[in-house]
Amino acid sequence: MAEEVIVPPVPLPLVLDSMLLEWLREDVGRGDQTTQALSTASRCRQKGAARWVAKQKGVVAGLPIAARLFHLLDSQVVFTAEVAEGQACEVGQVIATLHGPFNALLVGERVALNIAMRLSGIATMTRQYSAQIADLPTRLVDTRKTIPGMRILEKYASRVGGAMNHRLGLDDAVMLKDNHIAAAGGIGPAIALVRQNCPYPLTIEVEVESLVMVEAALEHHADIIMLDNMSLDLMRTAVQMIRQKNAQTKIEASGNVTIETIRAIAETGVDYISSSAPITRSPWLDLSMKMDSVPQSP
Amino acid sequence: MAEEVIVPPVPLPLVLDSMLLEWLREDVGRGDQTTQALSTASRCRQKGAARWVAKQKGVVAGLPIAARLFHLLDSQVVFTAEVAEGQACEVGQVIATLHGPFNALLVGERVALNIAMRLSGIATMTRQYSAQIADLPTRLVDTRKTIPGMRILEKYASRVGGAMNHRLGLDDAVMLKDNHIAAAGGIGPAIALVRQNCPYPLTIEVEVESLVMVEAALEHHADIIMLDNMSLDLMRTAVQMIRQKNAQTKIEASGNVTIETIRAIAETGVDYISSSAPITRSPWLDLSMKMDSVPQSP
Amino acid sequence: MAEEVIVPPVPLPLVLDSMLLEWLREDVGRGDQTTQALSTASRCRQKGAARWVAKQKGVVAGLPIAARLFHLLDSQVVFTAEVAEGQACEVGQVIATLHGPFNALLVGERVALNIAMRLSGIATMTRQYSAQIADLPTRLVDTRKTIPGMRILEKYASRVGGAMNHRLGLDDAVMLKDNHIAAAGGIGPAIALVRQNCPYPLTIEVEVESLVMVEAALEHHADIIMLDNMSLDLMRTAVQMIRQKNAQTKIEASGNVTIETIRAIAETGVDYISSSAPITRSPWLDLSMKMDSVPQSP
Amino acid sequence: MAEEVIVPPVPLPLVLDSMLLEWLREDVGRGDQTTQALSTASRCRQKGAARWVAKQKGVVAGLPIAARLFHLLDSQVVFTAEVAEGQACEVGQVIATLHGPFNALLVGERVALNIAMRLSGIATMTRQYSAQIADLPTRLVDTRKTIPGMRILEKYASRVGGAMNHRLGLDDAVMLKDNHIAAAGGIGPAIALVRQNCPYPLTIEVEVESLVMVEAALEHHADIIMLDNMSLDLMRTAVQMIRQKNAQTKIEASGNVTIETIRAIAETGVDYISSSAPITRSPWLDLSMKMDSVPQSP
Amino acid sequence: MAEEVIVPPVPLPLVLDSMLLEWLREDVGRGDQTTQALSTASRCRQKGAARWVAKQKGVVAGLPIAARLFHLLDSQVVFTAEVAEGQACEVGQVIATLHGPFNALLVGERVALNIAMRLSGIATMTRQYSAQIADLPTRLVDTRKTIPGMRILEKYASRVGGAMNHRLGLDDAVMLKDNHIAAAGGIGPAIALVRQNCPYPLTIEVEVESLVMVEAALEHHADIIMLDNMSLDLMRTAVQMIRQKNAQTKIEASGNVTIETIRAIAETGVDYISSSAPITRSPWLDLSMKMDSVPQSP
Amino acid sequence: MAEEVIVPPVPLPLVLDSMLLEWLREDVGRGDQTTQALSTASRCRQKGAARWVAKQKGVVAGLPIAARLFHLLDSQVVFTAEVAEGQACEVGQVIATLHGPFNALLVGERVALNIAMRLSGIATMTRQYSAQIADLPTRLVDTRKTIPGMRILEKYASRVGGAMNHRLGLDDAVMLKDNHIAAAGGIGPAIALVRQNCPYPLTIEVEVESLVMVEAALEHHADIIMLDNMSLDLMRTAVQMIRQKNAQTKIEASGNVTIETIRAIAETGVDYISSSAPITRSPWLDLSMKMDSVPQSP
Repeated sequence: MAEEVIVPPVPLPLVLDSMLLEWLREDVGRGDQTTQALSTASRCRQKGAARWVAKQKGVVAGLPIAARLFHLLDSQVVFTAEVAEGQACEVGQVIATLHGPFNALLVGERVALNIAMRLSGIATMTRQYSAQIADLPTRLVDTRKTIPGMRILEKYASRVGGAMNHRLGLDDAVMLKDNHIAAAGGIGPAIALVRQNCPYPLTIEVEVESLVMVEAALEHHADIIMLDNMSLDLMRTAVQMIRQKNAQTKIEASGNVTIETIRAIAETGVDYISSSAPITRSPWLDLSMKMDSVPQSP
Repeated sequence: MAEEVIVPPVPLPLVLDSMLLEWLREDVGRGDQTTQALSTASRCRQKGAARWVAKQKGVVAGLPIAARLFHLLDSQVVFTAEVAEGQACEVGQVIATLHGPFNALLVGERVALNIAMRLSGIATMTRQYSAQIADLPTRLVDTRKTIPGMRILEKYASRVGGAMNHRLGLDDAVMLKDNHIAAAGGIGPAIALVRQNCPYPLTIEVEVESLVMVEAALEHHADIIMLDNMSLDLMRTAVQMIRQKNAQTKIEASGNVTIETIRAIAETGVDYISSSAPITRSPWLDLSMKMDSVPQSP
Repeated sequence: MAEEVIVPPVPLPLVLDSMLLEWLREDVGRGDQTTQALSTASRCRQKGAARWVAKQKGVVAGLPIAARLFHLLDSQVVFTAEVAEGQACEVGQVIATLHGPFNALLVGERVALNIAMRLSGIATMTRQYSAQIADLPTRLVDTRKTIPGMRILEKYASRVGGAMNHRLGLDDAVMLKDNHIAAAGGIGPAIALVRQNCPYPLTIEVEVESLVMVEAALEHHADIIMLDNMSLDLMRTAVQMIRQKNAQTKIEASGNVTIETIRAIAETGVDYISSSAPITRSPWLDLSMKMDSVPQSP
Repeated sequence: MAEEVIVPPVPLPLVLDSMLLEWLREDVGRGDQTTQALSTASRCRQKGAARWVAKQKGVVAGLPIAARLFHLLDSQVVFTAEVAEGQACEVGQVIATLHGPFNALLVGERVALNIAMRLSGIATMTRQYSAQIADLPTRLVDTRKTIPGMRILEKYASRVGGAMNHRLGLDDAVMLKDNHIAAAGGIGPAIALVRQNCPYPLTIEVEVESLVMVEAALEHHADIIMLDNMSLDLMRTAVQMIRQKNAQTKIEASGNVTIETIRAIAETGVDYISSSAPITRSPWLDLSMKMDSVPQSP
Repeated sequence: MAEEVIVPPVPLPLVLDSMLLEWLREDVGRGDQTTQALSTASRCRQKGAARWVAKQKGVVAGLPIAARLFHLLDSQVVFTAEVAEGQACEVGQVIATLHGPFNALLVGERVALNIAMRLSGIATMTRQYSAQIADLPTRLVDTRKTIPGMRILEKYASRVGGAMNHRLGLDDAVMLKDNHIAAAGGIGPAIALVRQNCPYPLTIEVEVESLVMVEAALEHHADIIMLDNMSLDLMRTAVQMIRQKNAQTKIEASGNVTIETIRAIAETGVDYISSSAPITRSPWLDLSMKMDSVPQSP
Repeated sequence: MAEEVIVPPVPLPLVLDSMLLEWLREDVGRGDQTTQALSTASRCRQKGAARWVAKQKGVVAGLPIAARLFHLLDSQVVFTAEVAEGQACEVGQVIATLHGPFNALLVGERVALNIAMRLSGIATMTRQYSAQIADLPTRLVDTRKTIPGMRILEKYASRVGGAMNHRLGLDDAVMLKDNHIAAAGGIGPAIALVRQNCPYPLTIEVEVESLVMVEAALEHHADIIMLDNMSLDLMRTAVQMIRQKNAQTKIEASGNVTIETIRAIAETGVDYISSSAPITRSPWLDLSMKMDSVPQSP
C-alpha cells in the first residue's frame, strides 16, 4: 500500500513559467543543433513516446514542474506522472510517461530531468531527516541556503520531502542575528527598530546563544526564539524557561543538525529544527529517459 | 608552498550581471526587512568589516563572482580574495575580507555565500576526481547535468577544480545519442543530416555501445567517439581500433565513473572521461561570514 | 522648529531601479522629440539649475526617489532635497534644487514630479488620518488597495505619512477572509490548512464579523483578528473578549474608517486600524519645477 | 434607457499583457500563501462563481482589462461584463460576473479590482468635467500627469469618460514650453530647430502666456497654440487673433481648470481644454467582489 | 575644407543601452571563447590601441553608438571619433581610435563594426539621394521599411545622411492607406473615426491615387496628402489643386523614387519625397579595425 | 518543374518568440492609432483576406517566420505559404495568403513584410553566389557580419539560399585571427591556450596569410585553416601543402569573394569559401500585401 503523502501546492504558472523558459534557453542557446538538423528528415518529425525510469530508490519530486516545462516547450507533449509527487520509487520503476513530437521530447529531456533529479534528491534526504522525528511534535524546517535562482523549487521539494518552509526571503519575516543585535545595541533596541519600521504582521525571530539572550528575547516579546548551536542541556533549560514565560513563543533549534543528532534535539521539546543539509548536501536522484517508440528508418 | 593553479577566465560581466541581480532579487524580494529597518538608526548606516572563513577543508571557487555580486549591490563594498581561486583552504582559514556599508554586507551575505559554497563544493570534488589521473594524459570533463540557471558558473567551478568543459549547451557541438541514431536510421544517415544542416565548424560526437558502432562512427568520420558504459576490456579494444584507423579522432569514456574507477578507465588510453558526479553529487563547502567591526552602541 | 519625523528606509536600488527606468521609458518612448531637437544647438547642451516649488501645503514624500530617477537618467544631475522626507511644506516653499545638464532636467521633469506629487499626496492624507490618533497606542495601517506597479512606493509614502504597513503582498502573511473560511469549512479547518502548508513564521490573520467568529479565531490561535465592519459597541466587546483570552493576539479594525470616525474606533482599544483611503482617495500634492538658469541666447 | 457611449479601443494584448503579468507578480510575489495552502484540500480546487458589485454610483471603466488579467492568470476563468464600458452604474448594481476555478478568482481579485476601481474613478470624474461642455464644440483633453506605469490605461479611462487624449509621451508631438523657448532664444528659433530635427509629421504645440507670444507662434506657424493660465478676457482676445490669422491653428487652454470654471473657458471659443484633475484628483470608484458559490464543506 | 553637417541628436542611453547589451549578448553568447582563453595569459590582459579605418569612400554614421557600446562592455575603453558624424571619409582614412583593455577591444569589435558599417551604408546612400535635391525646398524622408529591432538607429542614420524622418511607428501619426479607407467607407468616414479616437495632436496623412481622392482629402482637412505612384503630370496637377485650396496642407510623393527620378519629382513642387531605398537597398560601408599595439610576446 | 530545395530547420519558438514580440512592439509602440481608431466601427472588426505578392523575381525566405509573427499577434490569423521556403518566385506571383481579423492583418503587415523582404533578399543573393559553385565540392559559408539582433534569422536565410553557416557567435568555435596570434606570441602558444581553456569539443580555426603560417597551423593541429586574402596561386600551394600533411584539416578561403571570383577560388580545392556579401550587400526582395476582401461600407 502506498504511504500517505500530503502534496504541497505547486508554484503558480505566473511565478514558474518565466523561470522554466529561461532554463530551457540556457540549454538550447541558439538552437538544438543535433535534433533540429535531424528534423529536416520528415521521419524525425513524427510523434514518439518515452518513459522516465528511476535508477535509484528515493522520493520523487518535480514531476508537475517537468510537465509544465514540456508544455511550455511544445503544448502537444503529454507528460503523465506515474508516481504521485512525494511517493517513494524503486529502482527500475517508471515514474512518468511522455507522448509527443519526437523533437520536443529530445530538446526538453535534459532540463526536465535536471529539475526532477535535483528536486527528488532534496525530497529524498529531507524524508530521511523528517522520518527520524515523525512521531514527535517537532517539525523539520529548511533555511535560506539554496541554489541561487532555485529557491522556490528547492523549498517546494523540501515540503514534498516532509519539512516545513522557513521564510522564503528577506522580506517575509524578520530575523535578528548576532550582527544585527550588536549593531542595534542589544536585543531590545533591535526589536524596537523592526517593530517601528516593518509591516506589522511580520514575525520577529531572534537568534540567541545564551540564556541571558533568551531572557532578553522573551522580555521584548520575540515571536520566535532560535537557539543557535546550543548543547542539548542548554537547549532543554532554554525551552523550559521559554515555556514558563510565554506559551505562545515558538522555539527553533539550529546548528549541528545531522541524521544522527536530530532526534535528540527534537526531544528537548523545541518546536522546529532548521537544517540546510537536505538542500546543500543531497546528491541528485538518478533518473533517465528511455524512448519507447523512435521513428524507424524504412 | 601553495600549489600552482591555472585559473580559468571568469564569465564576462555582460553575461554574469543579469544573473547576479536576479539572484539578489530572489532573496531580497520587496526588501531586506530586518537590515533596512535597523538602518533607520544612523549608527547602523556606518561602514563595517567582515571576514569569510572556511569551516571545512576544500578547494575555493567563486570569490570573483561574490566580489562582483557585492559590487552590483553597492559599489562601495570592497571584497578582497585572500585565497587565489582554485587554491586549497584549511579549516578556519580566512578566504576573503570585506569592507563597506554595514547594510550592504548583510543584505548580500547569504546569496554571495550560497554561490561560493556551491562552487567551492563542485571544485573540491572535481579536484578529488582529477587528482586521480593528474599524471596521465587523460582529462576529466563535465556534462550537461547542471542545476538549471547555474550552468555557466557550475562549469566554471568545474574548470577551477581541474576538469575541462564538455559542450556548454545544445548549440556548440553535435552529440548523436542512441535515440538520434535510431530515428535517423543509423550512424551514417545521422551524420549526413547534421553535416548538411549544422554550422560547419561544429564538432560531431557519436555515442557508441559496441565495436560495430565504433566502426560505423569511424567510417563516417565522427570527430569524437564516446564509449558509453563499456567494460574496460571493450574500451581498450575500441581505443586500439580507433587509433589505428584515425589518429585524430578524440575518444571519450562515459558511464560508471567514480573516484575508484576513474584511474583504470584513464589507463585504457581514452582522451577524456566525462562524469556528472562532481556537479550532481558534491556537497557545499562550508563557509561563513564573521563581522569584524560592527557599529557599536554608544 | 521643524517637527520630528522618523523617515522610513527608502527601497533599495536593487528593487527600485528597474521600475524607475521603465517609467522613464514610458514617458520618453522613442525619445524626447522636443528637448533632443533643441539640443542640436550647442547652447542647449549647457548645464542649468532648477527648483522644485510646492504650490500647496502638505507633507513631502518621494524626494529620494526623484533623486535616484535623475541619477539613472544622467549621473551628472545633482538633486538636493531642501525639505526632509516627511516634513510639512508651505505654499511657495522650495523643496528641492537641481543642477545638471539642461536636457536631462527637462527629460526627467515630468516623471520625477509625477512620482513626488503622487507620493506626497498619499503622505499628506495619511498624516491627516494618523494625526487624529497620534496620542493613542493604536496605529493606522494601509491595505493592498494600491495602484498596480506602485505598491512598494505607495506603501513607502504611507509610512512617510505616519502609518505602518500591512502585508506587502499575498506572500508575506496569511489573511483568511470570508470566502476562504467558507471554502475551507470554517475557521478551524482553514487555520489547520495554512499551518500545515505555509512557511512556519508567517502570521495568520482572520477576518471576523461576529463574536462567534472571534471565539473561533481565538480557539484556533489566530495571530491577528481583524474586526470587519463592526459597530463601535461590538468592537469594544470583541476587544475585551480577545484581551481576556490571549494578551498577545493583535487586533485590527477595518471598514468605515474616515477622518471623522478614526478616533472613536481607536478608542475601542484595537491595536491597528486599516484604511485604504489615504492611498485610494488622496489627490496629488501640487508641485512644479522652475528653471533658474536657462542657457541664454547670445 | 442607457445613454449612448462610444467605447474607445482597448489597448492591444501586445502592449497590455506584460504589464498585467507584472502587476499580478507584484501582488502574488512568491505565491498566494493563503489561497494556495487551502487548495491542498480538494474541495477548494473546485470551480466557483462571483459577482462584481458597485458600491458607489459612477462611470464604469476597465472591465475588458480585468477580463484580460484573469485570462492571463488562468484561461479557464470566464469574466463577463454586465455593464458596457463607459456606462453609468448605480449603487448595488452587478457590473460583472465571473466563473472559474475558485483559486484563480481569489488570486486575481485584488489586482483586477484595483485596476477597475482606479480606471472607473478616472472615468467618473472625467465624465463630470466633460458633461459641463457637452453641448459646446470644445473638447476636454488630458495631460502627461499620470501615475508612472499606468499612462496607457489612465489615458484609456480618460477617453472612456469622454475626454480626448493629449500626446501619450514625449515622442508623439512637440511641445515647446517656457524653458524650451528661453533656451532656444525665442519661439522662432525653437520652432526652426524642431522642424529641422523632428519626424516631419509631428505636430508642434507652443505654450504662450501673452499676446506677443501668440503673435510669434502664429508667425512661425505653430500647429497648436496653448494659452497658459490666461484670464478669460485675454483668452478671448487671443482666440480672436488666432482665428483671424490662421483658421487651422488649434487652440488649447490650460491652467485653473475646475468643474466650476471649465464652461466659461470653453465659451471663449478654444478648441481644447486640458486638465490633469480627472486623473490626479479623482478618488477610486468603490467596487467589490462577492463569491456566489463557494465550494461547501460537506 | 570639411563640408558643414548638422548632426542629429543621438538616441538617449535610456533607449539605446538595452539594445546594445542585447546585441553584444547575441554575439558573445556564453562567452568569447577565443579571447577569454587567451586572457588567462597575463600578457593578454594588458591594454592596447586600435584604429578604425575606412576601406571605402562614404558618409560616416554610428560612431557615437559604437562608443557607447564599448563603454557598456568595459568602461575603461576610450573610443574617439576622428571624423565627425555625417562627414565624408576617404579610402584608408582613420575614422576612430580606441584605447583600452586588449580583451574588451576584441570582444566588442564585430558588433560595433556591424553597427557602424550598416549605419554608414544607410547614410551614404541617403546622402546620394538627398544631394540630388539639395538646392530645392523639397525634403527626402524615410519610411517604416526598416530592419526589425534597428528602426531607431536606421532612422538616425537616415537623418545623418540628410533626410528627415517620417513617423517612427504606428503611434506617432495617423496614416490612412487604401485598405483603411475602403474599410471605413471612404476618406470622410475614415478621417472622422480617427479624429474622434486618436490623441488630438496627431497628424492625419491620407494616401491618394487620384484627383478625386485629393479633393476628398482636402475637403476633410487631411494634414498631409500623400500622392502615391502618380505620374509627374498628375502630381503637378495635384500639387496645384492642393496649394489653391489650402496652403498649409503638406504634400508627400511616394513610389518609383530612384536616384534618377528624384529630382523631377521634387520639381513638381511636393514638400516631401519618401523613399525606402536608402535603407532597404544600401550595401554596408566597408570599415575595419586594426590593432596598433598588441601586447607582445617577450 | 520546381527545383528541389532542402529547407533548413526554422528556429524554435523558444528562441524566436521574444524577438518577434519585441519587433512588433517596436513598430506598434503605444498602439496602432490608425487601425485601432477605425476598429471602433463594428464593420472594421470583421475578418478579411489578403495576399502577399512578389514584385520581383527572387528566392523566397521567411514565410514560416511571418506566420509565427501573425500567430503571436492574433492566434485567429491563418497564414498560408503558397511557395515553399527557398523556392524561386516570379513577378506577380502570390507567395502567401492570409485570413483573419482585418485589424490584425493591418497591424502586423509591415513588420512581417520587413522580415520576409530582408530574408528573401539574403536568400536571393546567396543563391546567386552558391549557384556558381553548385557542381563543385566547395561550399559557400557566411560570416559574423550580420545586422545586430537579426543573426539567427539572417543565418537561417543564408542556409535557405544554399550556403552553410559559419559559427553563430563567439562561443561555438574558436577563431584565432592576427591580433590573437600576435598577443599570444605565435600560433603555437595561441592554440595551446585555447586547448587548455575552452570546452574540449570546440573546433579551432586559424587565420593564416602565408605559407609559413600554414605550416605552423598544421604543426599545432588546427582543425580549420583559413586562407585570408591569398592569391589564387598561393591558395593552390597552400591547399596542396595541407592535403599532404593532414587529410582531415578543413580549408576555408576568405577575402575578395565576388560573384565573378568565387568559382576560381573554389577551383583551388578549398572546402569552404566565406563571404559576407549576401548578407551585407543584398537589397531587400520587393513584396507587398494586397487585401482581397475589405469589410465594405453598406
